Amino acid sequence: MPRGPDGGPGGGRASHAPFSYFDTQLGFAVRRWCAPVLGLEPHCRPEAYLERRAELGTGEVTGRLLRASGISAFLVDTGLPGPLLTPGELAETSAGEAHEIVRLERLAERAADTARDTHAFLGEVSEGIREAARTARGFKSVVAYRCGLDVEPSPPGASRVHASADRWLSTRPAGGRLSDPVLERHLLWAAVRTGLPLQLHTGFGDPDLRLDHCDPLLLTDFIRATAPYETPLVLLHCYPYHRGAGYLAAVFPHVYADFGLALSHTGARAHAVLAELLELTPFGKLLFSTDAYGLPELYLVGAQLFREAMTRLTSEWVGRGAWSGSDAESVTAMIAGGTARRLYGL
Amino acid sequence: MPRGPDGGPGGGRASHAPFSYFDTQLGFAVRRWCAPVLGLEPHCRPEAYLERRAELGTGEVTGRLLRASGISAFLVDTGLPGPLLTPGELAETSAGEAHEIVRLERLAERAADTARDTHAFLGEVSEGIREAARTARGFKSVVAYRCGLDVEPSPPGASRVHASADRWLSTRPAGGRLSDPVLERHLLWAAVRTGLPLQLHTGFGDPDLRLDHCDPLLLTDFIRATAPYETPLVLLHCYPYHRGAGYLAAVFPHVYADFGLALSHTGARAHAVLAELLELTPFGKLLFSTDAYGLPELYLVGAQLFREAMTRLTSEWVGRGAWSGSDAESVTAMIAGGTARRLYGL
Amino acid sequence: MPRGPDGGPGGGRASHAPFSYFDTQLGFAVRRWCAPVLGLEPHCRPEAYLERRAELGTGEVTGRLLRASGISAFLVDTGLPGPLLTPGELAETSAGEAHEIVRLERLAERAADTARDTHAFLGEVSEGIREAARTARGFKSVVAYRCGLDVEPSPPGASRVHASADRWLSTRPAGGRLSDPVLERHLLWAAVRTGLPLQLHTGFGDPDLRLDHCDPLLLTDFIRATAPYETPLVLLHCYPYHRGAGYLAAVFPHVYADFGLALSHTGARAHAVLAELLELTPFGKLLFSTDAYGLPELYLVGAQLFREAMTRLTSEWVGRGAWSGSDAESVTAMIAGGTARRLYGL
Repeated sequence: MPRGPDGGPGGGRASHAPFSYFDTQLGFAVRRWCAPVLGLEPHCRPEAYLERRAELGTGEVTGRLLRASGISAFLVDTGLPGPLLTPGELAETSAGEAHEIVRLERLAERAADTARDTHAFLGEVSEGIREAARTARGFKSVVAYRCGLDVEPSPPGASRVHASADRWLSTRPAGGRLSDPVLERHLLWAAVRTGLPLQLHTGFGDPDLRLDHCDPLLLTDFIRATAPYETPLVLLHCYPYHRGAGYLAAVFPHVYADFGLALSHTGARAHAVLAELLELTPFGKLLFSTDAYGLPELYLVGAQLFREAMTRLTSEWVGRGAWSGSDAESVTAMIAGGTARRLYGL
Repeated sequence: MPRGPDGGPGGGRASHAPFSYFDTQLGFAVRRWCAPVLGLEPHCRPEAYLERRAELGTGEVTGRLLRASGISAFLVDTGLPGPLLTPGELAETSAGEAHEIVRLERLAERAADTARDTHAFLGEVSEGIREAARTARGFKSVVAYRCGLDVEPSPPGASRVHASADRWLSTRPAGGRLSDPVLERHLLWAAVRTGLPLQLHTGFGDPDLRLDHCDPLLLTDFIRATAPYETPLVLLHCYPYHRGAGYLAAVFPHVYADFGLALSHTGARAHAVLAELLELTPFGKLLFSTDAYGLPELYLVGAQLFREAMTRLTSEWVGRGAWSGSDAESVTAMIAGGTARRLYGL
Repeated sequence: MPRGPDGGPGGGRASHAPFSYFDTQLGFAVRRWCAPVLGLEPHCRPEAYLERRAELGTGEVTGRLLRASGISAFLVDTGLPGPLLTPGELAETSAGEAHEIVRLERLAERAADTARDTHAFLGEVSEGIREAARTARGFKSVVAYRCGLDVEPSPPGASRVHASADRWLSTRPAGGRLSDPVLERHLLWAAVRTGLPLQLHTGFGDPDLRLDHCDPLLLTDFIRATAPYETPLVLLHCYPYHRGAGYLAAVFPHVYADFGLALSHTGARAHAVLAELLELTPFGKLLFSTDAYGLPELYLVGAQLFREAMTRLTSEWVGRGAWSGSDAESVTAMIAGGTARRLYGL
């Protein structure tokens, strides 16, 4: 490693590894599960995989991977940027059903893009949420990214909301993200009042969060404040705070845990993470999802890792008499989709 | 799932699962271990279990389950509400010995119920603790529930204690709980000064705590401040912060870890939680307990899950040469009761 | 257990177990791995081990254990007190190579011991770091011990640094430790600017830290602020926050995780801790080390526990098809030394 005198930003001397997303549990899991679907050996070299992927073309690859995943119903957060499949395209490609989950921050940002003043903005947000509640299956919030989960629990008063909206709209650069905590709480409470399931990002994700501000336990007071509404709160991902999420699901009737990307990204360790979630989470309150987005590989990997992990855990538990075989089957069915069907009205 | 317009509290639309306490690891463990003691097949249906339980009657069920647990000495927190067995009744029913652990908050609340003024209240608290030290085997605090574990470490001065007691007594509704942090510290220090073991609730429990305020590491400065007294501090439950509890037991001579309800509630995963506790906790500083209360099932489940988990872990470790067989036996004996006998003078 | 009236400090009545460092996972691992190297049976009694050790003498014991560890390159923090082997002596005894890691706090404390005024002190610190960058392979900070990891992220301005140094030097008792947060940040940033790897103590260690102030996630904003410099930040130990460390290594290109003493101290559970580190940490960003210091046993135990744990995990993963055999080999080689060779320029 070359070394020398002071280096400023950009002048760092360290030669970091030619980092590859393939050198992770997720990368290994992609080569294991997806390569055969594209006609390659499991664990083929990354270069071979990418070559074959290009050769087949995105449409063919997406169709193959989606169908191989065996997922029959998709709940799609439509608030992500980029040229992604719509729920309709996803349904068609996969031969499954697909429904929309509305991202609250995106809804507010779209309203801010066009509203002529604060009053109109707030009206559009309210109307947007009311509209969405008629067609979507749930809401999602990324307040974890925007200001962390340690939000004040109560709904903000109308005048504070108005003042915050005023300030945000008047200083917002074009396309600026919502991160005002008062407006975030306003959105969360508006969603809670619809009664539709509200998904909350918790735990790990992209680099633009502070992981220690995403511990779902930080939501405890908000959870307590919303309990009377009985609106389901679905804690997504949760890792590495998933045991705390299980606790919340155990003590609050309206709280659910969804392992989201936690299984996909831990690959060969997915069974261990799932096992920890199954310590305290009541069995009817844990949900499968993949957090797949952009890459169709994530659907297949997420589904296969869950199947393998669940089979492994329940085989072991049934084998030593801790669970009965029929309990294992019914719990598996609940996590794989039964609970989601009930919760989201599929 | 039915959906509709805004619903206020009580008008939530979500239909939560008909939640059953049987749909948890604890519920599965009860059906596994307790059903045979009542003459049923392991994993029989919950309804069959409840029916049989009613048929046999509470006295018979309690006796059977307690004796089957194989527990020979009980340390009973007598500060819980409700018509529970007294230590004497417990001893008689189980054919074991039973001793009292005095809950500090309850002692103070009883004093507040009858004291005619602040001076009398504080005198009664002091006298009560002195009295208890003559007959009980230890004290317990639920400061975790009342104001969280992030308490100031030092003993509060007499005038602050007096002022806080004044304020509490003058505003306390009938039967009101103690949650004043100054009075809590006063109680903790009074107990520490007796030299008797002081149990501290840490980690998970009922919904009226903030789990993230119950991390035993929040007690670090209090632990450091009390070290010169050499009074044993016993951290109860600890989950999901049990690795931190193990660390505290490793670095502070007077700190012990007791897994309490952590094994009962994680059922098929009890071995995994126990294994994590056995990472840093010195082997002579880890204690078995069940946190059983109300339901006699909890005694049997707690005892059986510990036996099974410990056997499993030590078999594995001895099998691959990491531990010797005789070490495994002696560590098991310490955790199962040897350390408790020494610590509580049984 | 004897009990009695109030006992003040020093008058505590509790009789704590005759605590032995052998009654821990580390103690069991020492008896397992080191006893045979000294010609004894694995798991021989502690007394027999200590007797044999005395009989052979420190020089012979050190040589045997170091050579048995199979470690070929040592990176030695030279900022510890006590009569320890120098890197040169270590290299000679082990027949390996040894290099220096410079502890920032020690460097500053040495400068404070001799500098005649604040200006001279700060000059000497700057010069010392510049000097060290020419010969050492990296820097190390124990800011975790001195003021916790929740430091302000940005480099402090020159006048604040000067004022803090002034204050520290004028109030410092002879040999006093550095714990001023402004001076700590000054040191950290000076090290970052050299481009050499900077090791940061995180997670557990000696009793004089607050473990909850050593969560590596508390460094997130500092990590973000230093990203443009591309200087490698190596998070040491990390336990029990190692999953968070893995996350940081996954999302920040310049962050690495080193398990340090986490494997040695968890003994029979080393594979479980390593497995958790291998959930999110990219495989080229995890490093082996032993944190050995003082006792040569720690080198052998650290190396053997890693070998055994890694073999066990990869055998299992390859056995069920999650990893390929050649991937297992190459990842093992990276963790065992490949990444360290690249990072530290060995």
